[in-house]
Amino acid sequence: MPQIAIVRTVADLRAKVRAWKASGERVALVPTMGALHDGHLSLVTLAKTKAERVVASVFVNPTQFGPNEDFDAYPRGEARDAELLDSVGCDLLYAPSVAEMYPPGFSTTVSVTGVSEPLDGAARPGHFAGVATVVTKLLMQCGPDVAVFGEKDYQQLQVIKRFVRDLDIPVEILGAPTSRLEDGLARSSRNAYLSEAEREVAGRMNLALADAVRRLKAGESVERVEATGRAALERAGFQRIDYFEVRNADDLSHPGPGPLEVSARVLAAAVIGKTRLIDNMAV
Amino acid sequence: MPQIAIVRTVADLRAKVRAWKASGERVALVPTMGALHDGHLSLVTLAKTKAERVVASVFVNPTQFGPNEDFDAYPRGEARDAELLDSVGCDLLYAPSVAEMYPPGFSTTVSVTGVSEPLDGAARPGHFAGVATVVTKLLMQCGPDVAVFGEKDYQQLQVIKRFVRDLDIPVEILGAPTSRLEDGLARSSRNAYLSEAEREVAGRMNLALADAVRRLKAGESVERVEATGRAALERAGFQRIDYFEVRNADDLSHPGPGPLEVSARVLAAAVIGKTRLIDNMAV
Repeated sequence: MPQIAIVRTVADLRAKVRAWKASGERVALVPTMGALHDGHLSLVTLAKTKAERVVASVFVNPTQFGPNEDFDAYPRGEARDAELLDSVGCDLLYAPSVAEMYPPGFSTTVSVTGVSEPLDGAARPGHFAGVATVVTKLLMQCGPDVAVFGEKDYQQLQVIKRFVRDLDIPVEILGAPTSRLEDGLARSSRNAYLSEAEREVAGRMNLALADAVRRLKAGESVERVEATGRAALERAGFQRIDYFEVRNADDLSHPGPGPLEVSARVLAAAVIGKTRLIDNMAV
Repeated sequence: MPQIAIVRTVADLRAKVRAWKASGERVALVPTMGALHDGHLSLVTLAKTKAERVVASVFVNPTQFGPNEDFDAYPRGEARDAELLDSVGCDLLYAPSVAEMYPPGFSTTVSVTGVSEPLDGAARPGHFAGVATVVTKLLMQCGPDVAVFGEKDYQQLQVIKRFVRDLDIPVEILGAPTSRLEDGLARSSRNAYLSEAEREVAGRMNLALADAVRRLKAGESVERVEATGRAALERAGFQRIDYFEVRNADDLSHPGPGPLEVSARVLAAAVIGKTRLIDNMAV
């Protein structure tokens, strides 16, 4: 049975955090949408090196899903999530209801231009405004010293760093390396949707990204690397490729078609069956 | 010579506030655009009843002015502002530069639907997003226990209450009664623009609002009260009337054309010469 304490309201969360801070303890927050896997647990483990207390939030945020996306189907299982968090020494599970987060009359949006516009911003209209708004709320509700997010959602991490800096939210945002399965597939709650055949296709995305990184380092042009990457995903069996792109690592602007001259990231999103997968790698 | 301390950076502001909080002192913030008058000073005086320490910020925020508005002409005078704040026992003046508030790459907006849309929201596109974003920043920079805003900018106050609640910003928002001159004209930094003749016209706005409140209390219909109010402003000599409206006091929705059945507010905005004035009264 899980020992971890669970709170469901802002008031209860704040009472816990206030008590810790009064004792001089630093607090880390790990925001998640639940359906936890080893990737999430690695975030908690990293958070524990940065603060005496770690809060994990589990909230499947409706406002970051588009009308035709998988909000209803998104996997949920609080008992298992609580057990897993307990197993890595997380101190508190914050699991608010949709009504606690968005009471009647709610009408505020935090939005970011620039870094949130290409890639998933173009493919999922409104997604990053939903993310920025809910993450602002979680940071305000918890008041952590540090918050940890996975690099698997690299654009999300850059959007969060951007609005936290712009709004002067007093918290350190920490990105954590992507956790991968044996064949290199990035761990994701959405992997649970994959059939056995789809799972095999999914495992090719990280290979295409790693190949792109090698080619860029060898001086191949951005344009050619992107075309090769898209072709590789098509050949692998992905049915729709949302993007396979080389971007400036900080602001996700396009580095131009030629050989790379900036610190860059290769990012991909593609659909297999009903599942949309994303991944990315540093160059 | 003013004794009040002045800080110009987020880091210096936070160092001051951190020291006060470490001594167990509560902190209040009074955000202003400077050109201080007795109305502002009454906010500081109210703030002093709520906290041991009061910070006033002076920042003429470019993002809440439209392209054809009076950003450049807006009155500025830090030495006098500092003296006035000192005279009422304000503890700190925070006067950041535009570059400190909006460094290169800034790309985040806090926006509010509903309450920010009618009235000044319709007359000044983008104004309330500019207000919501800069006030969020000031609250995050200072971290006050309470922040005080004048009811003179009534819609602004409701917008601020709305996003502070929606984003769970841990601060109490307090509205302070409008400070008025002898003939009832609401104190405003923009009154400095008025010629003697315009000043006389300006003094009629509060009379039209008071008359509207009397008529509403006597059971006159909203529709008729609004028409009478607009006619009164025209007769008084205002050259453009942006609005003269009765609104639900909380969410600024329209209460319907008939006799009032909700807690309401009458709000007006009109232009005389080059000066746009606003005022409002509770019913």
